[in-house]
Amino acid sequence: MNFGARKRRTAAATKAAGLDGILITHLPDVRYLCGFTGSNAALAMAGGTAVLFTDGRYTAQAKAEAVGTRVVIANKPVVAAACEWLVEKSVKRCGFDALHTTVAALESMHKAVPTKVRRGMFVASEPVVARLREVKDVDEISKIRKTASLGGQLFDGMLEYLRPGLKEMEVAAELEYRARLAGAEAMSFETIVASGERSALPHGRASLAKLPKRGFVTMDFGVVLDGYMSDMTRTVHLGRAVNGEQDVYHAVLEAQVAAVAAVAPGVTAGEVDEAARSVLRRAGLDTFFTHSTGHGVGLEIHEGPRLAAKQTQPLKAGMVITIEPGVYIPGRFGLRIEDMVLVTPAGGEVLTPSVKAWIEL
Amino acid sequence: MNFGARKRRTAAATKAAGLDGILITHLPDVRYLCGFTGSNAALAMAGGTAVLFTDGRYTAQAKAEAVGTRVVIANKPVVAAACEWLVEKSVKRCGFDALHTTVAALESMHKAVPTKVRRGMFVASEPVVARLREVKDVDEISKIRKTASLGGQLFDGMLEYLRPGLKEMEVAAELEYRARLAGAEAMSFETIVASGERSALPHGRASLAKLPKRGFVTMDFGVVLDGYMSDMTRTVHLGRAVNGEQDVYHAVLEAQVAAVAAVAPGVTAGEVDEAARSVLRRAGLDTFFTHSTGHGVGLEIHEGPRLAAKQTQPLKAGMVITIEPGVYIPGRFGLRIEDMVLVTPAGGEVLTPSVKAWIEL
Repeated sequence: MNFGARKRRTAAATKAAGLDGILITHLPDVRYLCGFTGSNAALAMAGGTAVLFTDGRYTAQAKAEAVGTRVVIANKPVVAAACEWLVEKSVKRCGFDALHTTVAALESMHKAVPTKVRRGMFVASEPVVARLREVKDVDEISKIRKTASLGGQLFDGMLEYLRPGLKEMEVAAELEYRARLAGAEAMSFETIVASGERSALPHGRASLAKLPKRGFVTMDFGVVLDGYMSDMTRTVHLGRAVNGEQDVYHAVLEAQVAAVAAVAPGVTAGEVDEAARSVLRRAGLDTFFTHSTGHGVGLEIHEGPRLAAKQTQPLKAGMVITIEPGVYIPGRFGLRIEDMVLVTPAGGEVLTPSVKAWIEL
Repeated sequence: MNFGARKRRTAAATKAAGLDGILITHLPDVRYLCGFTGSNAALAMAGGTAVLFTDGRYTAQAKAEAVGTRVVIANKPVVAAACEWLVEKSVKRCGFDALHTTVAALESMHKAVPTKVRRGMFVASEPVVARLREVKDVDEISKIRKTASLGGQLFDGMLEYLRPGLKEMEVAAELEYRARLAGAEAMSFETIVASGERSALPHGRASLAKLPKRGFVTMDFGVVLDGYMSDMTRTVHLGRAVNGEQDVYHAVLEAQVAAVAAVAPGVTAGEVDEAARSVLRRAGLDTFFTHSTGHGVGLEIHEGPRLAAKQTQPLKAGMVITIEPGVYIPGRFGLRIEDMVLVTPAGGEVLTPSVKAWIEL
């Protein structure tokens, strides 16, 4: 693991933000920085030192996981213990992540420090760690390759299982069963299986509806492997296509491929979104593309960057993003095609191994 | 559904807290009050009116689900739209839930209202809706009975499946597969299957470890049915017991039964905890009972009340709680027995149908 390097980068970013300390309580951030996966933790950093605060349930686990980070088993709330340590270290301006800190938690941070230092000690800063996490390091990319690959294998295996009459819920059950047996710790999110008219729902959770004799089946799912999440979508057709279904499929595929081709360091997230959207606009389908083109993915299913219209954030080599345009025609059908893509100096590398060509079962 | 009554009780509790409006953004609270299950919502209440704010993705769903509540499809962030409506309604003191509102969200609430009303408009109040949700109404109890019952049936069915050599992960996969086929929308939390020495881990997620020829297997899991979560634990023994395993089992069972027997309206949460803990103390096992005795459960897996030492909150008829003492002897074995229990005027009614007697497979 690269925990040492990650902590050093965090310390540098903290200093650059004009802060002399940082309190990290968002659990994926804690895991990223020191490897600890327990459910109760605060990581405080100041003066070149990082300390992980957790409780007695995690004594053994914290020592095993957080190698290279000092561990304190607190006999009080971990946030209070961390704040007291920050005061001991004479921290004057301590950053915290306003997006993941509740008003009640901030109140308890204030209560944990002496009144005279309270005012102004805690600064709602840019989400320092979230920003670092957008660019994956070598370890992370290796793990993400494995999870994306497992997702693709599972999809490929489901092709011989899918048939008209199965309930969407049964398809999800089968997929999740196979994922578990293949070693997935969990699914990344609630599995989407949306068939027939339900394929027009961008987020149609698997229901009791039966797969039709003719029509689309969209499967959007992900697995968690060693903490890292995959995310992919494929849409297949049961029976013979009618009424321009194939045309819409190929327009979405063209949009997806165009967006992948637009990926490169320095290109903005909004430009990648526009690459997909403009293809659908030319096909007269852009009004049916009702969501954004993608998002970062890693220890969490939705991370930065956000690939949506007008987003000016430039892509960087090492980012892992989804590219997932879709078209949803209410009352008729819908479809989406989604890959995970690694931003490399040479452009976008697709990590999802499954084919994207039209599949008719 | 009882959405009308729930909203009326919320309005009364809001008024009693000295507030003339309330902003609800915690999604289980929104679902509880109006039935809406979408992922983006804010519910604002003032002057006897409730308005649900969501976005264009949910137009049809909000109308179908939030029957009896006015729906506004906002073309801006839902919290901002809700705050503007509260200003229109001349709300002076608007409560919000500090436990579920981030510092960033509060900042955006402040930005959404004119500067002159900003100061003091938003008041971090008691979690009004969370408190109401602790006492379940008739509809909820009916749903919770079904989900607890399904959990028990799934456990019973697994008894003929369990055998030495299966990986814990395979057991979890099989259980979750059966849950899906039985109609569960999801599992309530990550399934725990902890066998052999791993049974000494209170929260041993299913691993690649194989079930032993001799030893305990603890299964702690829950299913989600119509939004309501079940939670149960049973510990069975593979092969013949040795070394006082049965004695420890019966001590935990006695503690569990004693705590269930202690349940009644007016009894404090701490007294129920003590009923379990004192049995284990007499058996010399209380130092190995390292967690609290239980928690409320409903639309979320962990709700109030919290059944832990010294908790003074009195139980009320209509609360649904878990009773789950356990003993964990590091390096040897552990076990836990958990039921869902409805607080009735006549005492605790166990909702989990599975037997608790010693099971040797």
